[in-house]
Amino acid sequence: MKTNLFTHKIHPATTCAIIPGQVIGAVGVGRVVDSKHPGFKTGDLVSGWLSWAEYTIVRDCQLLQKLDAKMGFPLSYYAGGVLGHAGLTAYGGLFKFCKPKKGEKVFVSAASGSVGNLVGQYAKLFGCYVVGCAGTKEKVDLLKEKIGFDAAFNYKEETNLNAALQRYFPEGIDIYFDNVGGEMLEAAVQNMNLFGRIAVCGVISEYTDTQKRAKPDMVQVIYKRIKIEGFLAMDLNDIYPEFILTTMQHLQTGKLKVIEDMSYGVESIPTAFVDIYRGNNIGKKVVKIAED
Amino acid sequence: MKTNLFTHKIHPATTCAIIPGQVIGAVGVGRVVDSKHPGFKTGDLVSGWLSWAEYTIVRDCQLLQKLDAKMGFPLSYYAGGVLGHAGLTAYGGLFKFCKPKKGEKVFVSAASGSVGNLVGQYAKLFGCYVVGCAGTKEKVDLLKEKIGFDAAFNYKEETNLNAALQRYFPEGIDIYFDNVGGEMLEAAVQNMNLFGRIAVCGVISEYTDTQKRAKPDMVQVIYKRIKIEGFLAMDLNDIYPEFILTTMQHLQTGKLKVIEDMSYGVESIPTAFVDIYRGNNIGKKVVKIAED
Repeated sequence: MKTNLFTHKIHPATTCAIIPGQVIGAVGVGRVVDSKHPGFKTGDLVSGWLSWAEYTIVRDCQLLQKLDAKMGFPLSYYAGGVLGHAGLTAYGGLFKFCKPKKGEKVFVSAASGSVGNLVGQYAKLFGCYVVGCAGTKEKVDLLKEKIGFDAAFNYKEETNLNAALQRYFPEGIDIYFDNVGGEMLEAAVQNMNLFGRIAVCGVISEYTDTQKRAKPDMVQVIYKRIKIEGFLAMDLNDIYPEFILTTMQHLQTGKLKVIEDMSYGVESIPTAFVDIYRGNNIGKKVVKIAED
Repeated sequence: MKTNLFTHKIHPATTCAIIPGQVIGAVGVGRVVDSKHPGFKTGDLVSGWLSWAEYTIVRDCQLLQKLDAKMGFPLSYYAGGVLGHAGLTAYGGLFKFCKPKKGEKVFVSAASGSVGNLVGQYAKLFGCYVVGCAGTKEKVDLLKEKIGFDAAFNYKEETNLNAALQRYFPEGIDIYFDNVGGEMLEAAVQNMNLFGRIAVCGVISEYTDTQKRAKPDMVQVIYKRIKIEGFLAMDLNDIYPEFILTTMQHLQTGKLKVIEDMSYGVESIPTAFVDIYRGNNIGKKVVKIAED
């Protein structure tokens, strides 16, 4: 099977020793060039678990699904993007785990990332007040000007995250969509409202340094009856039909903006991977290997 | 109103500066000696928010309720005990927030405390495997021999809490009822099973020293889809009828053991209060001020 369009989607939490010659897997989109499986034929578009390569032999076809491209969306949307893993994670994490009400105050960290920017957009479209944080002026400007967040700030410019959140949420935070962990999680707990909900999606600040682990104030967790819940996209299948319908509608009406950070060619994959850890990407990181 | 039987029930998390002459409130049981409120008459037994005193003037009767003692249980059971705050906290925290299934593995910290021992008993009666930890041999023996826990251990004798929990839960923990926070919460997260639930009821190890705050591994929280939720008894009113019916049945059949640590006289109140922080109490701490 030829991997025409491809995005790495090894979750950053996966410790990944790259051994020369070893196949590294990722979520991608490709076109079948030959098939011995009755469910797939030459020319089919598929999405699923492929590898960091121009061509992939897929032995376990349970991890593949045929891709219906008749809606005309770019194929990259399905490569772990807005119509794939990132979209489902954002939509399900927000609606299934945080159960927002209109007018509630939502905070998103790593808000210009593949999941974060979508969380904020879904929350805004639903009728929430949304503030995001990111690590560069460029990202913050994007969130405010293109993505439509109510406010955004550069956490690297804040000396006191607790004070920053007090400033952006004078009435407190109802929902925190956590992509980073660490001190930001501590500050969010301090600023949560009663019955606040924290969906724990990622811990980018802690993956490489356990010393940075958050010490959330559990007295606050009790008195404010805060719920902190970890989740994975694989548990969101029940909400998938609602997610895909809503998201396609928002895309067709232009209400949902798609932010992709694309690089080209197999040779760009390692750099693309490292960029995620360094926070260099804006939106969904996609590596395009071949034109469709 | 005369405060015949009385238990302090200022939550340990409340920072409490004791000022001479100031009235200090607590959950207690008393008998009305005089009343200008139409809902209460002389001789009525009441439970609710009283004060650290032999006699109390109650101005806000919304915090009082008439006590129906016809079931014949000791009045202390209603003074924040098994038929009051502690029972509801244990029952509601376990069944409403942790939703146990028969055969699941339950861990309880501060397990000989007023709430902890009841959590373990409810879980055992429901059909779970239950292990508790406490801070003395006497408490551990009580849990195993009188209260019927499957196992119990003295956390002060363990040099590695993570290893201790691995030993007692070789198949992992499904539910952790947390009364202590700190390192025990960290170790519990390490040993939780997929979709584990942590009900955060108390943080006794952290109240006086924020340096002891837990740093739970949020990567584990994500990958194991752990839910950590704080709660207060005041939010459990919906489960109250079920709680009181089930608990009275268990008491009548002798299945539920009541552990009280009673002291006598107003003069014993300050010591009783300090004892809770020092872990000197076993079961519900009750101060009896007068015979009924």
